[in-house]
Amino acid sequence: MQKNNPISSNKNTQKTWGERKRFLTGVKPSGEVHIGNYFGAINPCIELSNNSNNEVILMCVDWHGLTNKSEIFRPGELTQSLIATYLALGFNYKENSIILQSDFKQIQENSWYLSCATAAGMLERSHAYKDAIANGKSPTAGLLFYPSLMASDILTFDAQFVPVGKDQAQHLEYASDMAKFFNNLVDVEVYTEPQPIIQEIPSLLGIDGERKMSKSYNNTLPIFATKKELEKRVKEIKTDSKGLDDPKNPETCAIFQIFKSFASSDALLYMHDRLEKGIGYGYGHAKKDFVDEHEKVFGTLREKFEYFNNSEQEIRNCLKIGYEKAQNYADSVTKRAREALGLKSYL
Amino acid sequence: MQKNNPISSNKNTQKTWGERKRFLTGVKPSGEVHIGNYFGAINPCIELSNNSNNEVILMCVDWHGLTNKSEIFRPGELTQSLIATYLALGFNYKENSIILQSDFKQIQENSWYLSCATAAGMLERSHAYKDAIANGKSPTAGLLFYPSLMASDILTFDAQFVPVGKDQAQHLEYASDMAKFFNNLVDVEVYTEPQPIIQEIPSLLGIDGERKMSKSYNNTLPIFATKKELEKRVKEIKTDSKGLDDPKNPETCAIFQIFKSFASSDALLYMHDRLEKGIGYGYGHAKKDFVDEHEKVFGTLREKFEYFNNSEQEIRNCLKIGYEKAQNYADSVTKRAREALGLKSYL
Repeated sequence: MQKNNPISSNKNTQKTWGERKRFLTGVKPSGEVHIGNYFGAINPCIELSNNSNNEVILMCVDWHGLTNKSEIFRPGELTQSLIATYLALGFNYKENSIILQSDFKQIQENSWYLSCATAAGMLERSHAYKDAIANGKSPTAGLLFYPSLMASDILTFDAQFVPVGKDQAQHLEYASDMAKFFNNLVDVEVYTEPQPIIQEIPSLLGIDGERKMSKSYNNTLPIFATKKELEKRVKEIKTDSKGLDDPKNPETCAIFQIFKSFASSDALLYMHDRLEKGIGYGYGHAKKDFVDEHEKVFGTLREKFEYFNNSEQEIRNCLKIGYEKAQNYADSVTKRAREALGLKSYL
Repeated sequence: MQKNNPISSNKNTQKTWGERKRFLTGVKPSGEVHIGNYFGAINPCIELSNNSNNEVILMCVDWHGLTNKSEIFRPGELTQSLIATYLALGFNYKENSIILQSDFKQIQENSWYLSCATAAGMLERSHAYKDAIANGKSPTAGLLFYPSLMASDILTFDAQFVPVGKDQAQHLEYASDMAKFFNNLVDVEVYTEPQPIIQEIPSLLGIDGERKMSKSYNNTLPIFATKKELEKRVKEIKTDSKGLDDPKNPETCAIFQIFKSFASSDALLYMHDRLEKGIGYGYGHAKKDFVDEHEKVFGTLREKFEYFNNSEQEIRNCLKIGYEKAQNYADSVTKRAREALGLKSYL
């Protein structure tokens, strides 16, 4: 075959960055946000958004939420509360962008272009797909194709940096590789290879005191639970059988370990000290202090959350700001891909 | 999981048909159109378009043309000539629609929704994918996902009937099955299950006199070849070694077999008679008559083709007419799918 590429001589394709570093983070609307999510993923993202050297695109990936048939209605149900969570917790949406994946048709289009430059076997080797099969589940075609859509999420917006946990490193490698494959095939620098920012934050312990806090283990503490709801869950935190006056080890105490993730330093020192001394301070007391401090830290945030979660207008305003900025990036990247392929619209 | 589907009570989803039967035909821009294409696929489609009981959507499937890496630049190069071919040969584009696949982003979106209701194994069992592997090729992820995009081509436009050759019957079954799977999953009649119209037209013999006329066998006669180009190709038509005055059997004569597909009845009878009698009528004479008749039948059509192939404005006019009609169908179907999934845009 002769490569008859109309713009292959022009290798310096215009990228869409400004002076700020562009980060992209995808979050799936898949359930109630818990304290583990907050410290593992949400808070770092919010901090990034409040540094004016960065431009953060926070994408609610509703399309990804469809890959599991038994949860296919969740994305639609949970999108608003997910965005309300980020707004309540202080994501700087005016200087950055919050966007909804399914508003950007270019993502599916670029996903197709990437898939046409990538060997099918790569999809079959993805962790998510292999895990589904290993767990005896029947994966959907959507799950099989997921790495391509995920790569496109990043590449469609010229993202330079993607913060990920270690378990997601493979997906990011896929995005880099697929960008390489496509650019090489058309001989033009269409897509930007993203760099992973591997987040080393250790995972938070769940209320079972054994495994990391995760929806899958049903051992979470919802961040915006009311005091009453939280009290009920906190009572379930596993402890040993030490009595009221026994000295207790904060480092092996699940209450204290979770408490560390959000309590003020004063509250922390207080509980640490009382647990170690033990005298007249049992696990019941620690649980009561836990609930009080949670209410102190998250109480007003919960009110903010309720406000945003009930105001479609606020969500719309926020998504419109993001849409207008990100739409330019997505159009520009998609135009580059189509030109490199020689695809043309006659309209 | 609880099915919390906002519109599941409304099963009578509004379809987009009018009184005419809606047909959809996809054609891939993959090379010079030959006489075999014309009689196997193009002519039947043009006849459908000239029957006012039908509404024909003719889609140039440029996205499909990308699944083979070694031909990735072809769709862009060949789209205009493919559309010019249909216009020259009399497709009634004003009463029907000619559209370009990559103008319809909804196709990729619906392809995603369908894939999320379909088991991955179904993609791996598709003929095109298995053939690629059996032939030692490394299939792209695009080829693996092809059945989903192809199903979406049909379903995105509420097509009721799809004319196909026998070899494509599986793809159409896939489209029907995927429509069923999705509708069942969301419990709403979103997608219309299409009915195949299996075309029984026997395939045309190639100039090697052995196999069917096909680009893959390099045994074709281009429909719009100039007289000079055609003469060269017709000389290559295989014959037996019968001499000038020998009686010849038209039924086993490749020249006559191909001739039958386009010649007027007068010309047909003449050649049939002369071959059978044989006297003073050799294969050289038959080939000369072949070329003359081809020029008579396709000469003015070639001029029309050249005109459309050189007029971007004509192609644009035609695609705009199709786009406006088909856009309504695609928007309506996509809206149905999103509503059934509970997906919402806040913009």
